[in-house]
Amino acid sequence: MKINKRIQIFREFMEQKGVRLSLIWDPDNQYYLSGFRAIIYSRPIVTLIHADKTELIVPGLEELHALEKAKVDKLYVYYEQIDMAHKEISYLEHLTRLLKKYPAGTKLGVELGLLPASVYLFLQEQGFELVDVGQKIINMRAIKDEQEIELLKIAGQLSDYAIGESLKHARAGISELEFDSYGDKFLLEIASKDYPEELIGYANWTCSGIKRSAMPHLYSSTRKFADGDVVVHSRQVWFNGYRAENERTFFVGKPSEKQKDLLKLAIEAQRVGMEMIQPGITAKEVDIASYQVFKKAGYGEYVNHRIGHGLGLSEHEEPYLRFDNDLVLEEGMVYTIEPGVYVPGLGGFRHSDTIILTKTGSFSITQYPRELEYMLFD
Amino acid sequence: MKINKRIQIFREFMEQKGVRLSLIWDPDNQYYLSGFRAIIYSRPIVTLIHADKTELIVPGLEELHALEKAKVDKLYVYYEQIDMAHKEISYLEHLTRLLKKYPAGTKLGVELGLLPASVYLFLQEQGFELVDVGQKIINMRAIKDEQEIELLKIAGQLSDYAIGESLKHARAGISELEFDSYGDKFLLEIASKDYPEELIGYANWTCSGIKRSAMPHLYSSTRKFADGDVVVHSRQVWFNGYRAENERTFFVGKPSEKQKDLLKLAIEAQRVGMEMIQPGITAKEVDIASYQVFKKAGYGEYVNHRIGHGLGLSEHEEPYLRFDNDLVLEEGMVYTIEPGVYVPGLGGFRHSDTIILTKTGSFSITQYPRELEYMLFD
Repeated sequence: MKINKRIQIFREFMEQKGVRLSLIWDPDNQYYLSGFRAIIYSRPIVTLIHADKTELIVPGLEELHALEKAKVDKLYVYYEQIDMAHKEISYLEHLTRLLKKYPAGTKLGVELGLLPASVYLFLQEQGFELVDVGQKIINMRAIKDEQEIELLKIAGQLSDYAIGESLKHARAGISELEFDSYGDKFLLEIASKDYPEELIGYANWTCSGIKRSAMPHLYSSTRKFADGDVVVHSRQVWFNGYRAENERTFFVGKPSEKQKDLLKLAIEAQRVGMEMIQPGITAKEVDIASYQVFKKAGYGEYVNHRIGHGLGLSEHEEPYLRFDNDLVLEEGMVYTIEPGVYVPGLGGFRHSDTIILTKTGSFSITQYPRELEYMLFD
Repeated sequence: MKINKRIQIFREFMEQKGVRLSLIWDPDNQYYLSGFRAIIYSRPIVTLIHADKTELIVPGLEELHALEKAKVDKLYVYYEQIDMAHKEISYLEHLTRLLKKYPAGTKLGVELGLLPASVYLFLQEQGFELVDVGQKIINMRAIKDEQEIELLKIAGQLSDYAIGESLKHARAGISELEFDSYGDKFLLEIASKDYPEELIGYANWTCSGIKRSAMPHLYSSTRKFADGDVVVHSRQVWFNGYRAENERTFFVGKPSEKQKDLLKLAIEAQRVGMEMIQPGITAKEVDIASYQVFKKAGYGEYVNHRIGHGLGLSEHEEPYLRFDNDLVLEEGMVYTIEPGVYVPGLGGFRHSDTIILTKTGSFSITQYPRELEYMLFD
């Protein structure tokens, strides 16, 4: 991870804006700028980026972890044992002290859309002028470097393996969560063999049946697949933090002609988006072109979400492929292409793949077959 | 879920504070007060609690889901398709309109510690006086009702099954993630059989080896267990949103006498905490008593976290069992008891169980054996 380079770019931006230091709160942003990520943040963790150094404040139980992983100049630890009560027992004690050296009116960068209001008010009380730097980090994170793309590729390949293994077990009588678990187990076996001493995570959202598949986002449940089901299976895998999304809609038992047509329509809308996406085109063009496929077939009113979102360290990353986004796409951006159509009484239909934009085009890091013939499970 | 009762209690609090409406932002708090939870919130979702009605703002793809699950009086939907651009395309359009009927200076309740600064500033610009209501929701959520306790009990039992199954496969050569996956798969099979059409989720953090186990919180990795390892396995299961935590420390191969003593010490510190916790005692008393076990044995300096946290809809819930918390514990509270000791060169040692406080005492919803003899895997 090229932390130094990122910090340098971010500092140049800070300097342009007259921002003398930034307080980074969001876990993914902190990971991006320091290489350190905790599992849970009920004990606050804060990264400070000054013009001349970086600092990290962590609770005692993260001290060894931060010493090993965090690429920062200084580490400060707060404690929660009674015998340490003479030292700092809150991150605010460190923070107050570290901020003291700046005069009132100093411009301090914060992630306005992610920082809790209570912390914002605390910083304001310390006399700072608060400036949003969140959008800059979003823009930086949107363009992936070679190393990030390598991690994404591995995540994509692992997601293909997992989907394939789950689909081997697609049949009436298996629950959504059991279906997921076959892919999980296989994924972890392969990853343990091929990638020792790495971090791998995953998530699945499997919506089965006419009613549940017509709702795009539901947690997998213990509902059992039944004959006549449409199933929208969302498989996500992350490798050292970088996430691929891979979704397939399939049938258990015999689908109706109308249902087959709807899946073919979703596949066609996806193909249009995947062929179109490349540097120089705008986010809205991709969204609208893909949507037109549904609209022309008379199903426009059954579309209820944009065609895709950015992907990387977070599940959904800005900027989005949405009809009102004029953003011009660039090399190194990563997007899901996942047009969906949801018809009450017939079900939901959506494939999703994860696409990386290259200098002249794009490629998909998820490759599981998409065609109808692979989506039939009797 | 007794949503109406919760809303009633919350409204009484609002009235006392002169708060005429509250905007609830946190997903878990919204679930607690409306019964609706989405998977992901990159599209904002907001619950409004007025004196006379409740309102929910959702993106189009959650409309059917919200209609089915949300116990609110009014639902407002915003869209992201080009053909809906004449309607609302942002939650802010709905919000601005719904807030308009209140005069400038109206007191509006927000979760100060959870609401993003950008939304706080938006509400301030609309002329509201913003009042923190987050602590009230924390206090309400801390006391579980009978129905919540039933869900927690199921989660606890499922976590026992999963730990047992994972431990059957504890041996040198298996990776942390593979070890986890055996428990996951078994858990989902049992749950699918016993609890049809329910939501079940899980997480594991398995830290194996002398070095990794000495760090209390790490994501499971593809590192393979080896002879001489100490392993701290954290297993979490949630059932319809309610979470049990279950952690066991075990040995792969032959531990040294010192390592065995350290695990026995952690078990003893946990026993002290579990015996002590009951209504009428303070949070700090439990933490300090348990800590003293380590201190008396000369290991006080190797303790780096509080003895436990609240549990329920969130992974860690306030209030905490910490040395400086004077809170008097009450019936219906739920706590992990998980004293840990982390000695470089020897490893980390921590069991965790999830305890429910009753009228006169407490009981553990996690029951997997704790004794050293069950924690040896040759």
